Amino acid sequence: MTNPDNAAKEVADRIRGGRNFLITSHRNPDGDALGSGLGLQRLIRRLGKTAAMQVRDGFNRALYNIPGANEVAITDTLPPDYPKHYDAIFTMECPEVERTGYPVLPGPVVNIDHHLGNTMYGEINYLDLEAPSVGEMVMQLNRNHLRLPMDAETATAFYVSLASDTGFFRYHNTTLRAFEAAEELVRAGAVPGDISLWINESNSRGSIKLLGLCLSTLEVTPDGKIATAELPKHFFADAGATPEDTEGIVNYGRSIDGVLVSALLKEVDDKSTRVSMRAKPGVDVQAVASMFGGGGHKAASGCTMPFALAEAKKKLIAILEEIV
Amino acid sequence: MTNPDNAAKEVADRIRGGRNFLITSHRNPDGDALGSGLGLQRLIRRLGKTAAMQVRDGFNRALYNIPGANEVAITDTLPPDYPKHYDAIFTMECPEVERTGYPVLPGPVVNIDHHLGNTMYGEINYLDLEAPSVGEMVMQLNRNHLRLPMDAETATAFYVSLASDTGFFRYHNTTLRAFEAAEELVRAGAVPGDISLWINESNSRGSIKLLGLCLSTLEVTPDGKIATAELPKHFFADAGATPEDTEGIVNYGRSIDGVLVSALLKEVDDKSTRVSMRAKPGVDVQAVASMFGGGGHKAASGCTMPFALAEAKKKLIAILEEIV
Repeated sequence: MTNPDNAAKEVADRIRGGRNFLITSHRNPDGDALGSGLGLQRLIRRLGKTAAMQVRDGFNRALYNIPGANEVAITDTLPPDYPKHYDAIFTMECPEVERTGYPVLPGPVVNIDHHLGNTMYGEINYLDLEAPSVGEMVMQLNRNHLRLPMDAETATAFYVSLASDTGFFRYHNTTLRAFEAAEELVRAGAVPGDISLWINESNSRGSIKLLGLCLSTLEVTPDGKIATAELPKHFFADAGATPEDTEGIVNYGRSIDGVLVSALLKEVDDKSTRVSMRAKPGVDVQAVASMFGGGGHKAASGCTMPFALAEAKKKLIAILEEIV
Repeated sequence: MTNPDNAAKEVADRIRGGRNFLITSHRNPDGDALGSGLGLQRLIRRLGKTAAMQVRDGFNRALYNIPGANEVAITDTLPPDYPKHYDAIFTMECPEVERTGYPVLPGPVVNIDHHLGNTMYGEINYLDLEAPSVGEMVMQLNRNHLRLPMDAETATAFYVSLASDTGFFRYHNTTLRAFEAAEELVRAGAVPGDISLWINESNSRGSIKLLGLCLSTLEVTPDGKIATAELPKHFFADAGATPEDTEGIVNYGRSIDGVLVSALLKEVDDKSTRVSMRAKPGVDVQAVASMFGGGGHKAASGCTMPFALAEAKKKLIAILEEIV
């Protein structure tokens, strides 16, 4: 792998040498996808150049608080003048090019990411596996090469990126670099309490009620290592909830002392159940998900099991008991 | 109020000039109470002096992960040789002297706190209303006056203090100072991901199940501004939960978009209901709590209403509707 800072310099040179850019990120964009892209967009514009951001899917309304998020186009296709009229497209936080949901290749692609296993599909690949977030990588690029002053709006976008990808400074990627970045962003005008308020305290009513219904089904195996919760279809109606409202529920089981794996079992129909799993360090739930054609990574994986909910739960617990 | 740094210097002089100290904190000690005290204890011992820590009440087992926490004495009374044989007792994070649960006065008291309204009951009063946590105040005192190098254990104690009092960098006291302190602590060996794991991911089974049962009773008023949840007595048995397991439940209602006040109503008996309230900025729930002889502060208050749960809920909503 190229030294990240050398790649960052190449990216800076490409920005300086060009005039018209596109920025995109992965499907179902999260705080880092949008925060890193919108921060980069502001830096490029500060240089008097053009940069439009577009993503394939819509996103959580809390993220509309990121300055500039209202301007992000949500579209199924790239502009008709792509790639001809663009000096590059930036793909933020996409380990594979397909994650964008767009046919960005062939065309000049600048790939900016921090995931192990990035397929290096770009003309420039700026990869930094040590970076707490992709937004932080853009900050490094700016600090070392573009050297533009940071305004409060840009700082807010990067703060969202940093806070999202570190779980608000809870995950193990909360490194010295993460806190150095946070310090720089607060100095530039990001307000941590406000950002947390709109990201962490703007849940929907349905999501909280659905959380309650699911957690009331919580079960822990006798050895205390496996936690399960159930989500039969009627819970959505009972709670006035939508499919997005299930996010995060599976983490509650994992947060129990002694629990190594948490699984949320969601009824799809009478022959299939969607399973989300979360593991504490040392347990690999991806191995289990892959038995049913699912994916993810060691600590967080999902799959669909070809059984009704009760049956799926029994089988899943039996499999998990083998590995914990 | 004295300049905080002048007071810090007085505290440092008192430590340097003495030999034998006691450290205590408030009843039901939390992460800042213990983290600030244990960090101070290590600094004093590094100077070759004696410092014992004792508190009135037991504490959450997650906090036993703070280095030195096993040594903290949990006792009803001060040592028989107090105050005679002590150069001072440090009261960490106690706005009123009574919060310690001990008769520390008369005696040489060093009062270290960051709360508005501290009654300045100490011989030395080191108060800093801008400090994100009391542990961070001890860090300042060390940085500017004692100038002892920070080891990993001390850094861990102060990190717990900082993370606890800022809600893991979510509250509005997450200032530049908070991040500067975090940076210093990570440099000295604190591991944010590990500390978060043992503080945030060691919930009891009962607390998660109880959370589920309570949230399944969630109701929001038609205008969307008031959220309530109920805790009838039988939920404890249903969930296998204990009284401490209710902590944090009331925050979920507040986390809903548009909700300004959240209340958890806990059945005491058929004539009384314990109410906990949380408000978003701009709403004062202390005013409501004080109508029933309760207390707290604007954003977080509690009281006991002399009615059965259903009746208390109706009356409380009527009162809250007047103020939101």
